[in-house]
Amino acid sequence: MSLRRLAASARSQVPPFAVMDILARVDALRAAGRDVVSLCAGEPSGGAPAAVSAKAAEIHDSGRALTYTPALGTAELRSAIADHYRRWYGLDVDPARVAVTTGSSGAFMLGFLAAFEAGDRVALARPGYPAYRNILTALGCEVVELDAGPASRYQPTPAMLDAAASERGPLAGVVLASPANPTGTMVNREELASLADWCAANGARLVSDEIYHGITYPGPDAGEHSRGVCAWEADGAQEAIVISSFSKYWGMTGWRLGWMLLPEELVAPVDALAGNLALCPPAPSQLAAVEAFSPAAYEQADAWVAGYAGTRQTLLDALPALGWGPAAPADGAFYLYAELGAQLERFGDSREYCRALLEAEGVALVPGTDFDAVHGGRAVRLSFAAGQAAVEAAIERILRFQGA
Amino acid sequence: MSLRRLAASARSQVPPFAVMDILARVDALRAAGRDVVSLCAGEPSGGAPAAVSAKAAEIHDSGRALTYTPALGTAELRSAIADHYRRWYGLDVDPARVAVTTGSSGAFMLGFLAAFEAGDRVALARPGYPAYRNILTALGCEVVELDAGPASRYQPTPAMLDAAASERGPLAGVVLASPANPTGTMVNREELASLADWCAANGARLVSDEIYHGITYPGPDAGEHSRGVCAWEADGAQEAIVISSFSKYWGMTGWRLGWMLLPEELVAPVDALAGNLALCPPAPSQLAAVEAFSPAAYEQADAWVAGYAGTRQTLLDALPALGWGPAAPADGAFYLYAELGAQLERFGDSREYCRALLEAEGVALVPGTDFDAVHGGRAVRLSFAAGQAAVEAAIERILRFQGA
Repeated sequence: MSLRRLAASARSQVPPFAVMDILARVDALRAAGRDVVSLCAGEPSGGAPAAVSAKAAEIHDSGRALTYTPALGTAELRSAIADHYRRWYGLDVDPARVAVTTGSSGAFMLGFLAAFEAGDRVALARPGYPAYRNILTALGCEVVELDAGPASRYQPTPAMLDAAASERGPLAGVVLASPANPTGTMVNREELASLADWCAANGARLVSDEIYHGITYPGPDAGEHSRGVCAWEADGAQEAIVISSFSKYWGMTGWRLGWMLLPEELVAPVDALAGNLALCPPAPSQLAAVEAFSPAAYEQADAWVAGYAGTRQTLLDALPALGWGPAAPADGAFYLYAELGAQLERFGDSREYCRALLEAEGVALVPGTDFDAVHGGRAVRLSFAAGQAAVEAAIERILRFQGA
Repeated sequence: MSLRRLAASARSQVPPFAVMDILARVDALRAAGRDVVSLCAGEPSGGAPAAVSAKAAEIHDSGRALTYTPALGTAELRSAIADHYRRWYGLDVDPARVAVTTGSSGAFMLGFLAAFEAGDRVALARPGYPAYRNILTALGCEVVELDAGPASRYQPTPAMLDAAASERGPLAGVVLASPANPTGTMVNREELASLADWCAANGARLVSDEIYHGITYPGPDAGEHSRGVCAWEADGAQEAIVISSFSKYWGMTGWRLGWMLLPEELVAPVDALAGNLALCPPAPSQLAAVEAFSPAAYEQADAWVAGYAGTRQTLLDALPALGWGPAAPADGAFYLYAELGAQLERFGDSREYCRALLEAEGVALVPGTDFDAVHGGRAVRLSFAAGQAAVEAAIERILRFQGA
């Protein structure tokens, strides 16, 4: 009947991720009875704080109808999030400037749409979380990748932004992630201020991804800002979009709940967009998430972070034996991003290394190519959220693999 | 510090909905102690089927970690949805063609992005659900409104599509909703087939919104297709995007869970887009929603539909006394969309009528202007999902208001 076969849109042609093939292979190996240690997933495996799960069970037991909430979230949760900024950062945040979203994913979609036109240039560090680039591209923005290496702890700098603007034209936005994925590196207060100042002086909107805040490994001198610095601490005008989530520190990935702090002029547009594009974030998650801010939940999450810290140290101690490097500092989050050193000569690139390691020893890592199309062939990302036992087993297997 | 004040993007300037002002006023009146009957919300107030709530409580009680699921949903739920199509429509649907989404909202976003380029023309009926238009506009598509009135039961026809394509240029897509919001009207099997044929012959993608399926009021001759006709029944090539949801028939609005049936060539693009834009639909909702397909849940939902049918009849019986008309047939969904008749002369338009009715008698309706910018000033939408008692009280108050 059809005169021509319909096709998918060009803008939906998102680059495939190597990790998807790896995860499929992990499933196949496990189905065949192989014991696989997967250090791929960017998520804790322990689940939500007990207080949150208990609240969720109570809500469902009550038979309460879980209807639409306001598009920007329940008043109770928006207020609890604002309180969290006072508690962790000493910041005075108006609950009316808090937008609860369907994960930080929903926040990026709404925030990018509200802040940027199609054709706008938005800069971000490479290596980086690939979804930033793919969402921006799907929305018609021009992504400007900043080649950020060890010299700047893999983070953007004002000099990089100047150079990018000179070469490509004015930037409408800058996406910053601290702690970053895949490197775990953080910017300090002065570095964040210099980026916020650059944005203010150049008419660019700063979008600060703070979803790994609270998962940090500060030295003894880190002081009160050891959770990570919030962009609104550096940006007194509160012109940045701050994005965060219940997924990482609180281990609630599948609950799909995040939030934004919004500049005044974006509140109404985001409200209208959210009402049309999403209606509201998941109601059961919102009602239960209020308990994430209870003392018991903070205590439980902090204990998980202490566990990640121990596992991270095990991994750092093993680096000389592994012969990898340079490795990113892993200031926060639960990732080690490291070049493969001498192994590169043997395997050619990180994709081949990861493929061979999975087949030979049943250890799954993510090749750096998923985060950096230019230099990622030299590096791998290892998630130590998988836990101490998994990481110890992985180290032993990798050493055997590399020594074989 | 800022040289110029940053502004929101032009594409985020979504038209405001009158219903938002009305809902705010409802809250204010209730806070002031007024007894308000709100027939605004397009959602059942009874909550999910008991089997679904019980399953959700059990999941949270178990302490199970609710981590990311695959981007297109759990295999179990995709398979259960495919089974539902055999059960209700006798259709053989491959679970690999089912994409679970974050409400039908998530389906529209992903489906539109995957099917249409920026600049593509997409046609839809006016009056209609305003989010179609607003999502398409935010994604850079050109919306072509079809002036659909009582003569076509407020639904598009091939003749309208021919005329629109002649006037505006080739159409890349057509959005169909049956039962429709705000009118409740449905297309029958022949009408749906004629629209699918038009799309096939003209290279347009049909997007069929079937979220109100199952909430229908068929006459005694409706036969086996009384749930609504699925676009894939009319479109043997399965080139249409079919969109549905757990929100309406199963009363699970706040759970944010819907799905799409996808043409073969859109599965991989939607998978990649979903992984970047949303990661996955809410995991607790997915795990519990499997119970929506249990016999007990169907039985409970069907009992709710029987309740809506009774309330609908009460309302239709009151139409002569109300003096409204013409009214759309209300074949399905839980809306009555009616012109205001003689009341228009008194109040000028439906916005003013709704405002005055709310202030005088505490009854909240939605003015038709939210669904039809051209003729909507003549009509109101009344949701009878609010239940029998609310509708009876509203009728009594409206009669008093109009007689005053």
